Amino acid sequence: MEITIVKIGGNIIDDDMALTAFLNNFSAIPGAKILVHGGGKVASELGKKLNLQPEYVQGRRVTDAATLDLVTMVYGGLINKNIVAGLQKAGLNAAGLSGADGNLITAVKRPAQPVDYGFVGDIVQINTAVLSALIAAEITPVICPLTHDAAGQLLNTNADTIASALATALAKTNPVRLLFCFEKSGVLENVEDDATLIESLNASYYQQLKTEEKIHTGMLPKLENAFKAKAAGINTVWLGHANALADLAKNGLPRGTVIMA
Amino acid sequence: MEITIVKIGGNIIDDDMALTAFLNNFSAIPGAKILVHGGGKVASELGKKLNLQPEYVQGRRVTDAATLDLVTMVYGGLINKNIVAGLQKAGLNAAGLSGADGNLITAVKRPAQPVDYGFVGDIVQINTAVLSALIAAEITPVICPLTHDAAGQLLNTNADTIASALATALAKTNPVRLLFCFEKSGVLENVEDDATLIESLNASYYQQLKTEEKIHTGMLPKLENAFKAKAAGINTVWLGHANALADLAKNGLPRGTVIMA
Repeated sequence: MEITIVKIGGNIIDDDMALTAFLNNFSAIPGAKILVHGGGKVASELGKKLNLQPEYVQGRRVTDAATLDLVTMVYGGLINKNIVAGLQKAGLNAAGLSGADGNLITAVKRPAQPVDYGFVGDIVQINTAVLSALIAAEITPVICPLTHDAAGQLLNTNADTIASALATALAKTNPVRLLFCFEKSGVLENVEDDATLIESLNASYYQQLKTEEKIHTGMLPKLENAFKAKAAGINTVWLGHANALADLAKNGLPRGTVIMA
Repeated sequence: MEITIVKIGGNIIDDDMALTAFLNNFSAIPGAKILVHGGGKVASELGKKLNLQPEYVQGRRVTDAATLDLVTMVYGGLINKNIVAGLQKAGLNAAGLSGADGNLITAVKRPAQPVDYGFVGDIVQINTAVLSALIAAEITPVICPLTHDAAGQLLNTNADTIASALATALAKTNPVRLLFCFEKSGVLENVEDDATLIESLNASYYQQLKTEEKIHTGMLPKLENAFKAKAAGINTVWLGHANALADLAKNGLPRGTVIMA
């Protein structure tokens, strides 16, 4: 049975109308599927109200104890439960999970050297049993970017990384499609110009573009995860606009960037 | 297969050491089990930091839109995920659910007359499929006090009511034990004196005590739910101290109040 894993980013989550459209499109994907969602601005905004100052190093939020509570509330509670309720409205039976739920994702707290990111988890092990149980019951897993260390500690983990790791783990037993949806049409040579879409990107061309600094820095973690998944043997890895998902059911892969080995 | 449903209240959740002890005791209960948790003070404290004023009518929080977001974060995120991580640490594979997850609990927003409680849900339907799927996979469901209306709206629902309704639904197919754990030894004739424990309480004695105003008002919603579950045919309904759960595995029902028809 083929499983489609869709990662949805923060910019879509922050936009109520875009999110509703996305959830309807996602619901229409035939067959087994999994949604992985990122954070969005809500956590930072709430943090400001609570006088927490968000700190980022190399695009990753530094997670102190108060920030970990904040993202646990926002990612695991507010965003995850509202997405699940939205999917139920769209007629898709869904259930939210963090990496602690069903022992889905065990992680280890990242070493404090060279940079101390705080309560950030690097994935150690994926346990797909809870996903299989839900999918067999025709319930779609919706996964927030939290993991645990199996010793009681929740950890903050990048959602792209989670999507890639889940795809890799599930690919051992199932054909997998991994789709990264965001607010651009895919990988663009010029981030401001949709017409510069790179429809197909292989590892050597990616290295060349990276060397020439032609890849927008915000895209680098996403692409690293995309290539990691591709290298692990996943058939289809695709990046594109959230709206393009509407064409997925009808026409195979819609307009976007397909990752090649 | 017998299913033990345990409800744990806010006072235990607010106390880290008591919660850890409780989670260890809960993990040791043999066989299939479900944990339902309430809220605790965290939501109110966070609400204060955000300048939300908590409002209660007849022991129930009035839930405006901002408060609904608050409880979705705290109940569905912070408390639920930390309990799940704590159970994983205790060696029990658990997964957190709201009433939206797996379409577990459909509710209807309570009518605004005579009192407008805001986004509070009265349970309409229980769909146990997600519980069965998880239990079959040896994963223990951990349920937070949120429901949904199947039209995209999350709702705040009393945890005692959820525990009672789940027990009633599951009792159609399984023997069920329903245990309400809190910070007292059970129903006390004198709330300050543990020696006045009522070890067995039937409906007519309860009515008499209620008429004589001998039941602490804080106990009334819990007891209404306990008697409702008993009337629905559940074999065992028990109320008692969270610590008493340690004796459950060894000695059948520990010290506490057993509800009789």
